[in-house]
Order: sequence, then C-alpha cells, then structure tokens
Amino acid sequence: MQFLSDNAAAVHPAVWDAMHRADASDSPYDGDALSQRLDAAFSDLFGRDCVALWVASGTAANCLALAAMVPPHGGIICHRQAHIEHHEGGAPAFFTHGAKLILADGEDARLAPAEIERIRAMIERDVHEVQPHAVSITQTSELGCTYKPHEVAAIAETARRLGLSLHVDGARFANAVAYLGCDPWQACQGAAALSFGCVKNGGMSAEALVFFEPSLADVARYRRKRAGHLQSKGRYLAAQILALLEGDLWLANGRAANAAAGELALAAGNRLLHPVEANEVFLKVTAPERAALRAQGFAFYDWGNDAARLVTAWNSDATHVADLARAIRQL
Amino acid sequence: MQFLSDNAAAVHPAVWDAMHRADASDSPYDGDALSQRLDAAFSDLFGRDCVALWVASGTAANCLALAAMVPPHGGIICHRQAHIEHHEGGAPAFFTHGAKLILADGEDARLAPAEIERIRAMIERDVHEVQPHAVSITQTSELGCTYKPHEVAAIAETARRLGLSLHVDGARFANAVAYLGCDPWQACQGAAALSFGCVKNGGMSAEALVFFEPSLADVARYRRKRAGHLQSKGRYLAAQILALLEGDLWLANGRAANAAAGELALAAGNRLLHPVEANEVFLKVTAPERAALRAQGFAFYDWGNDAARLVTAWNSDATHVADLARAIRQL
Amino acid sequence: MQFLSDNAAAVHPAVWDAMHRADASDSPYDGDALSQRLDAAFSDLFGRDCVALWVASGTAANCLALAAMVPPHGGIICHRQAHIEHHEGGAPAFFTHGAKLILADGEDARLAPAEIERIRAMIERDVHEVQPHAVSITQTSELGCTYKPHEVAAIAETARRLGLSLHVDGARFANAVAYLGCDPWQACQGAAALSFGCVKNGGMSAEALVFFEPSLADVARYRRKRAGHLQSKGRYLAAQILALLEGDLWLANGRAANAAAGELALAAGNRLLHPVEANEVFLKVTAPERAALRAQGFAFYDWGNDAARLVTAWNSDATHVADLARAIRQL
Amino acid sequence: MQFLSDNAAAVHPAVWDAMHRADASDSPYDGDALSQRLDAAFSDLFGRDCVALWVASGTAANCLALAAMVPPHGGIICHRQAHIEHHEGGAPAFFTHGAKLILADGEDARLAPAEIERIRAMIERDVHEVQPHAVSITQTSELGCTYKPHEVAAIAETARRLGLSLHVDGARFANAVAYLGCDPWQACQGAAALSFGCVKNGGMSAEALVFFEPSLADVARYRRKRAGHLQSKGRYLAAQILALLEGDLWLANGRAANAAAGELALAAGNRLLHPVEANEVFLKVTAPERAALRAQGFAFYDWGNDAARLVTAWNSDATHVADLARAIRQL
Repeated sequence: MQFLSDNAAAVHPAVWDAMHRADASDSPYDGDALSQRLDAAFSDLFGRDCVALWVASGTAANCLALAAMVPPHGGIICHRQAHIEHHEGGAPAFFTHGAKLILADGEDARLAPAEIERIRAMIERDVHEVQPHAVSITQTSELGCTYKPHEVAAIAETARRLGLSLHVDGARFANAVAYLGCDPWQACQGAAALSFGCVKNGGMSAEALVFFEPSLADVARYRRKRAGHLQSKGRYLAAQILALLEGDLWLANGRAANAAAGELALAAGNRLLHPVEANEVFLKVTAPERAALRAQGFAFYDWGNDAARLVTAWNSDATHVADLARAIRQL
Repeated sequence: MQFLSDNAAAVHPAVWDAMHRADASDSPYDGDALSQRLDAAFSDLFGRDCVALWVASGTAANCLALAAMVPPHGGIICHRQAHIEHHEGGAPAFFTHGAKLILADGEDARLAPAEIERIRAMIERDVHEVQPHAVSITQTSELGCTYKPHEVAAIAETARRLGLSLHVDGARFANAVAYLGCDPWQACQGAAALSFGCVKNGGMSAEALVFFEPSLADVARYRRKRAGHLQSKGRYLAAQILALLEGDLWLANGRAANAAAGELALAAGNRLLHPVEANEVFLKVTAPERAALRAQGFAFYDWGNDAARLVTAWNSDATHVADLARAIRQL
Repeated sequence: MQFLSDNAAAVHPAVWDAMHRADASDSPYDGDALSQRLDAAFSDLFGRDCVALWVASGTAANCLALAAMVPPHGGIICHRQAHIEHHEGGAPAFFTHGAKLILADGEDARLAPAEIERIRAMIERDVHEVQPHAVSITQTSELGCTYKPHEVAAIAETARRLGLSLHVDGARFANAVAYLGCDPWQACQGAAALSFGCVKNGGMSAEALVFFEPSLADVARYRRKRAGHLQSKGRYLAAQILALLEGDLWLANGRAANAAAGELALAAGNRLLHPVEANEVFLKVTAPERAALRAQGFAFYDWGNDAARLVTAWNSDATHVADLARAIRQL
Repeated sequence: MQFLSDNAAAVHPAVWDAMHRADASDSPYDGDALSQRLDAAFSDLFGRDCVALWVASGTAANCLALAAMVPPHGGIICHRQAHIEHHEGGAPAFFTHGAKLILADGEDARLAPAEIERIRAMIERDVHEVQPHAVSITQTSELGCTYKPHEVAAIAETARRLGLSLHVDGARFANAVAYLGCDPWQACQGAAALSFGCVKNGGMSAEALVFFEPSLADVARYRRKRAGHLQSKGRYLAAQILALLEGDLWLANGRAANAAAGELALAAGNRLLHPVEANEVFLKVTAPERAALRAQGFAFYDWGNDAARLVTAWNSDATHVADLARAIRQL
C-alpha cells in the first residue's frame, strides 16, 4: 500500500489512449499537430496568451524556466526547502550556468512578500554579491500547503517592484487549484513562467512549461534543444498533456488525490504538522508507530525522526486509504 | 509517403505492450525492476560488463557520454559532419561545460585513424590550445555508411595510443549491426561509451547510454539527474529498451529498415552518392526531378542543391517503398 | 586615516624593486626564470613538494583551486560567512561550472570537524542531492580568527575520512602564521591547495596558488589560461611573490599589520566581538560613536548596526594607529 | 635579439611612473580616481560615449566582451585563424558558457562582408543549429594586416543587417591605427566592444575593454568580478592605460613597432607572405635559412615549414632590427 509519492503512479487510461492515437502522425520534434495545439490549450486554460513547451521532467521545466529569466551571474530567491534547492542534483546551477539560489525562510515552505524584501535588502547592490533576478515559489509547497490567490498576487507585486521575475514550480499545481477552487490563473497570477505538472497527476513523461511572457519561450526553445530535451517523437508528450487538459481531467485527478489525503488528514487529527491543502500529509509519529504502520503494509517516507510524509495520488486505492486512515486512528 | 526521417516513426507494438506492463510497478526513477535489468541485458548483448542508463534523446545520450569523458577544458575529435557538431544545438558544449569539438575530415562522414593522428599532431601540447581528450565516431555515419569491425578496432587502438577515450554515437547502431552482420561488440569495440539508439528503431522516448567503463557511469548518473533527464517514471523508458532487446527485435527492426533502403538503392543505381549500408539513401537528383517525386506524394529532404536524402524506418510501408523505387527508376 | 581594508594598501618597496628587475627578461607567460622559481620557493617554504601558480586575485586563486578539486556536479562545504560565498560575485560557481557551496556554521567564522561531519551526514548519498567533494576553510577567518595547527590537522583528518579535498583560502595567511608563530605548513597542513595571499600583504597584483597535490596543478594550468589569467608578462607577478618570500618579508609584513591591530585591540578592551588574532578588529560601537570616530578622520566599515570593522595593513601608519587607539579609549 | 613576440616586451618608463604614482591612493577595486577616469579618457579618444573596464589580459577582454553580447546557446562568427579560436585555450566557451565559434575564411586572416553573409546563410534558422549572435574581427589581423576604415564600416553594416553584434579584438589596435593614420573610431566603427590592447604596446598587465554600447558594460562588470578579474588594486591597471593614452603614447609606441617591422619588410622583399601593415612580418624562409638567422642570434617563431614570423615591439632595438634586416637581405 503505497504512500511514498505520487511521482511513480500508473499512467491514466485517457493518457494512454491519447498516446496511442499519436502513433498516426509522423512529424518530428514539436512540429506535429498535437505539439502545435499546446499554446492554444494553455491560453484557453489561463485566459491569456501563453506559449507552452513539453519537457520530460519537472526538473527540466523548472530549470529551463529559470535559465530563461536569470543570467549566469544572477540569483534566484527561493525557499530553503524548495525542490530546486534540495532535490534536483544541482540542475538549477547547470541550466542557468551557475546562477545562485538565495535561500529564504517561511512557514509551511512558503515565502511571504516581507521575506522576499528582507532578502533583497540584505544584498548590497554591487558586483561583489550575486544579485537576485527572480523569485521561485512552489504551488503547492514542499509541505503540501498552497498560496491563496491574494498571496500569489502579493508576491508577484513584490517581485515586480523589486525587478524580479516570478517562476512558479507547479509540480502539484493541479492539487493546489483543486484545493483553492479558483481560476487556474489566480493560483499563479503574475508569474512569467509556470512548471505545470503532469507526471505526478496521471501523465507518464511530460510536463508543460508554460510561459506567460512569450519572449522567454524564444530563449527556452533553444535551451530545450541544447539540453537534449527536444525529443524527436514529441507528439507523445503533447498527447499526454492535452489528454490531461481535456475535460479538465487534470483537475479531477488533483481532486481525487486531495480527497484521499483529506481522509488521512481527518484521521491524523492533531498529529498534523502542516495544514493539508493538497495531497501530502505530514504527521507526527514516533519510530515505533511508524514501524507499526509499516508492519501493516503501508509504505511511506520518514520525515526526520519524529514524523512521516504520506502522499496520495490520482489513483490511490480507496481501500488502502481507508485502511491507512483507520490504522492512524488506532495508533 | 514518408521518407523524411526514421526519427518520428510509430512505436513498435511490442514496445507499447512492454510500456503498458510497466504500469504495474510504482518504483520511482531507476529503482524499478526494469531499469535494474538494463545492465545485465546489455552485458549479455555485448559479452562484457556494461552499465546502461536510459535517457530521453540521442542528444542527451551523446552529451552525457562526452561529459563523463572530457573535462570542460578539453576537446573531442569528431567528423565535420557529425550530429554532435551540426544538429544538437550546442548541446555538447552545454553538457561538457564548454569542451570543444575539433573537426576532422573523412569520406562518407567517417573518420580514419590517420586523420585522428593528423589532428592530434596539429595541436601543440600547451595550455594555449584545447587538448583533445576523446574521439567520437558515428555508427552508422551521417551519410549512412558503416565502420567495419576492423576499422572500429583500428580507431580504438589509435585513440588508446593517443590517450583519447572513444565514444560511439549509435543513433542508428541497429542498422549498422544489421548490415555488418557482426557481433554487436565488434561494431563498437574499444568504445568507452555507446549511445545505443532506440527511438529511430521502434522506440518512443528512450535511448540507452551504455558504458563499457563503469566508472564513467558513476559520473553520468549524477549528470543525468542534473540535466533533468532522470525521469521519475523511468520504468517506461526501461521497458522500451528491454522490449527492443527481447528476441533481438532491435536487429529485426534494423534489418527491415535496411531492406527498404536497399530496394531504393537498387533503383537508384549510379545516382547514389554514398554506399548504402544502412537505412539512408543519398541520391543525385535535380530540382525538377525532386519536384516530380514530390508531386507523386513522396516526402524527403533535399541534400544541397543536387541531391536528396531518403530515410527508411522499421515500419516503412512496402508499397510506398516499391512505389518510390519505381518512381526513381522512371526519373 | 584608513582602516577600511588591507586590500588596497600601497605596494612594498621591495616588491617594486623586484618588479623593475623583471623588465630585463622577455619570456612570455610563465616560461620566465622568475615564474619557474615559484615551485622551488614554495617547496622550501612548506618543506614538501609544491607546485605554485601566480594569479591576479584571491578570487581567481580560490576558484581555480576549487575547480581543480570538485566536479561541476559536486559541492564544497564552507562557512556561511566565507568570502567564496559572500564576496566573490558567484565566481566559485563560474569556475567550477556550477558546483554548490554547502554552508556550515561555526564560531568566529571557523569550521569545526563536527560541523563538517554533521553537514556530510545530512546529505543523502544519492543523485538527487549535491554531494560534497571538498571543504574550504579560511586562514585567517572572515572574522580575523585563526585555526590553530591542531585544529587544521583535525579538519584535514575529517575531510580525508569523508573523502573530501581540503582547500585553504589564505588571503591573510601571512597574518595567521605571524600570529600562530608556527611553521607555515602547520597552518594549512593536509590541504590539497592553498591560496597564499600577497596582494593584501604588500603585493600589487599577484597571489600564489599553491598545490600540495601536483596533479591538481596540471588541471589548474589549463583552467588558468582558459579563465584569461595566464598573463603574458607573468614575470611581473612572479617577481612580486618571490620578493615577499625573500627573507620572509611576507611574515614581517604580516607581523606589522598584526601589531597595529593588536594595539587597537588593547584599546578596544571589552568592546571586542571576536578575538583579535590577525589584522582585523571587530568592535562594538554605536552609530553615534562611529560618527564620532569618523569626525576625527578615521575611515572604516560598519559591521551591521552596532559594530565596526577595523583593518590594519603592512604599512599602517604608526601615528594613525596610536591616534585611533586613543580615540577608541576615549569613546 | 628577440623577434618572437611583442607580448613580453619591457614596460614603458612612462607606464612605470604612472604606476608608482598610484601608490598614493588606497581606494579598492575600480573606485579609485584613475579607474574612474577611464570612461572619459576613451570617450575623448573615440569621440563618443564609452565605458571602459580594465582587465588583466587580452583573453579576458575578448571573452568578457563576447559574454556580454552572446547568450550561451549562441554563436560568434570569426576567422578560422582568430586568436579566440586558436590560442585562448577554450576561454571563449568558458566565459560565454558554451557559445560556439563559427569559423569563416578570408585572405590575410581577415573577414569580408560576403563571407559573413555566406556563413549566416548556411545556418538554418531553427533550434537544431547554433545561431550566430555576433561577429568578431581582429584589428590588426593574426597575419599582421589591417581592415581599412571602409572595410570596418562595411562589416559593421553587414553585422547590423544580420542582427549580429560586432566585437573588435584590438590586441594590436595601436599598430593598426598607426598604420591607417585614421581616427581611432574609424578603425573600429560600428563595434559594440573593442579590446584595446596595452600589454603588447608598453603596458604591463592591463588591457582596456571599451564598450560603445553602455548596457553591455553593466553585464560585463558583474562578469569581470565573477571571473576573478576585478583586482583590488585596480588603480595600478588604470594607471597603465591612462599613461599610454596620455599624449598619445599608445600611438607613438605603435608607430615605433610598425617602423621596425617596415624596415624588415623592406629587406624581405618578395619573401613576404602577407602585406606588412603593422608590426608582424611573415616571410618565406627555408629551414636552413631559418637556422642561419638563428645562428646569428635572432629569435623568432617558425610559421609552418617554410616560413617564419617576426614581431617587433615598441622597444625593438634599432641595431637589432638593422642587423636582422641585413641578415635577411643576405639570405
């Protein structure tokens, strides 16, 4: 009974179907009809002109976005616990040619405008220190929390005022929008680029890198090729993304994962370490308690010495979820 | 009737089946059973210890190999027409952090030992010039020609003597081995790394990067992650590769493509610009002749002003091939 | 009356003389007799085989050292206040092609073995996190404190055990050795490379990058050229370094600067924020007090809101020092 | 009797004097009065607004200029024999983070507009090929020839039309202007940046990187620091440059070197391989002839098997020059 991560869940049947249909075309790279539909599909979704590129991983999406925004000698303000800082093996430095992640603090792995201002103010405006050129936030955050629309707006406004571009890492953007119940744009408003996650949400090997500033996409296209991410059969990636957008399957999948997490959160009660606003549950559990859960067949990651992280997915088995909820209650 | 390239052909049914079966697992990255089988599968194929990593593109395979072999201040001797020089958008410089491609000449886009020695001898051994650290050859070459086993061996020996590592870009390795009828190792013997192509040969989105020197793989693993190429659902890539290795499907596919090209070559007669030793046919045809072929529904690329390139694939339609052969005869 | 920094003090007369004498030669780059003497000069100084390269700045020395030790995908453990982290404008990432500075804590801007072990232990040994390959310490530290010989030895031993190379940023190495009164090697023992500072100590434009592991120098030579740091009239840099080594002028200069700082330290009494073990004095002074000092003609940097940093140099004017000491006492 | 290169000649007395006077200041980096005068000095010289930065080497000047003009995924059109291609140890790729040198041909190591257009036209405008973003020419060329003012203007116009920035490597700019007898701007008109050489012309360790597009300098300032080229005692570099500009010493030095080369050219007669338009003389001489010259005490580089390169400097000894001229005549 798998609660380790949503990053390896099976592919959704509708995604499979769309991929199979892509067999029929034979246009290479992103010249095929499916790839060509991405801009319009995301422009519809966000109610504004977008340019969208498929890439094979969230790391590639995040880092191509940052590389288009930040010069090699620049920096990116992000949360100390951000995925780009901790779990991308140095990819941001690779794609940006050495730009620096400038680490900020904030509850629930979220940044607040005042913290961004504090960081900016600490850095002397001379050549001896790396100057920030962008802010990157994660929606939902590494601790399963969301930025409310007004919070995103405030961050965007702060970034704009400080001359910083805004990137949103949306590996679990679907879960955030499903939770917030808002218009998708409201969940990332003011961003220059969004990594729109698909792999954790029913896709196989495609993430959408959505640019709200088209000139950035012109750069990113070259950088994508240069990073070995311009697959020649790109239509199979476009097919995945379009299948998830079709009929808002992405949102339905996000809601399903959130609902499962909600059930676990209810069971966890005051063991919760963070609000459960998406599909991740962080709960206080001792080592013996964790051992007890594992003995019952539940797989999950430790979160330090006194806690665990439970992640649900679009296809979390209802019985497994109910069983785990019960097991948590009985700890 | 498509003869533009083999790089966008449909996915082979056996590959689809293997991918579907991969739905059952949920181990992320390359921790799944399929990914774990790659080393053994390639060790069997090549009759020696291999470490094999999946990546999403030939560009990524080539460049991760080179990055593991060559320091940022080093160089790579390759043919002037090599894919890494011409069609990878600067990816070799990106992955290697600026290593230099040192261009060499040779008939049929192939390098000879004497040319490698000539290039090495031209470069003064001081810090003012970039020193070569590797040789990269393409099997089959950009002009559809192969290196015979003894030629590969001679190049490997020359490289070894000059202190250069050997990389083989095998985007169309299957076609070469199918043509040569040799043991796979003989077609790349002495290489430290081989980009074993699958995408052009019935796969969807997976190439195998095979290291014959395991220590290079230790570096490449970190570099793969750092380049955003460690997909979380890597099992779907491993599945593709294993499906092609199973029962030597890769060779059967290579043979099928070669056979189609052979039929065209026969028709082309003395219009041929290069020996047809794989699945690419370069033929002398005037602009009006090319227009005539296109008017009959054949799609292909011009090759300069007086020639055309025809590429067949594992699934080239027999009728289309016969029709094109006839049309060529009737030019 | 200048106490801002030692980094812009006048050039020592003996250094000038040596530079003038270098006019006579005309061998370019580092082929001249002076440059060729550096290895032997430092081998004598440290009592072991050294390879020494001149470079134009401490930043270049530090970063060429790190680039020779750490692959692009690796990391470097250093103190949170290290110069390489704060005041080199991202140069470490540039020279190393993106290696990551992994920040550690420690009193007086110094690292302890236990902290290095803690940091290493926090990082999971997988490709998702950047793995440390080196430790960099600063002798003397950013806060004017030294590592005692046994402390350096303990760090070196810890680094060795953890598979990390050791770099010592010795921008003020002379001040440290002058303070410690030890053999120079004892102040950096176990290091693979030392940035031996000359510019702050009577030189003009030359630092010595000393390798105790010669194979690193082979790499650094190429990297130096590639970074535009192989000056064609390198003999003028070698002359500076040799002049400072001659008759231990470097130590005499270090002692002179330390003595001036010691006089200020005595005056500062319990205003001192850190032990004064070199030529930097950090003292608690309010804004009005700082204004009062400045009104008397003393120039220095604020250190946050409630402190000031005073730096002495090899040529600090004795009267100015005495005046400042008196002014501090009278605050 | 040295005719190897001008790159290691002694420092001019006026430069020494200016450097000594710089002892008096103690402002670090480029905050001193001398460094602050550079912009105005070059604005005067070129009759237009300039921003000028000192750096320690021609390689650094060239590569910082290119890095400010060209993105990492871009390319630079230059002559096949350009210094940036052949003798900078890969520095252009390092500073630009992998931009590609796109090699062009042309007599006397000079580019012509038609060749630039030919190269641009050969490169398909897609992401698979590296797109040129700049042109770099060398004034005087690697073969000692100059671009006439109208030739520079034509190249600049071609570059502008093709959307390419223009860089001029002026390691021997003084020699070119001395030869052309034109206004300095005419010798580089339309350039976005000029590497204004001083080291080969009486300086010690300072080249001036002159930007005619000030926004590029804003980037270059950060990149200079990041490359370890912001020396803390920068005033000694500024002093060198200003001393050479003072009273047009740079031109006088250029003329002196050219005159010496002219004397040799006259002696060489129809042995000359290239017009002698600066301070380099390429002459056809057999191996025995070269041996004969060397036996008389003349030092110079072979230029392939059948030629030699003779280089004069600002301080070439008149007797040595006369002796060499005579020796050549008597071959």
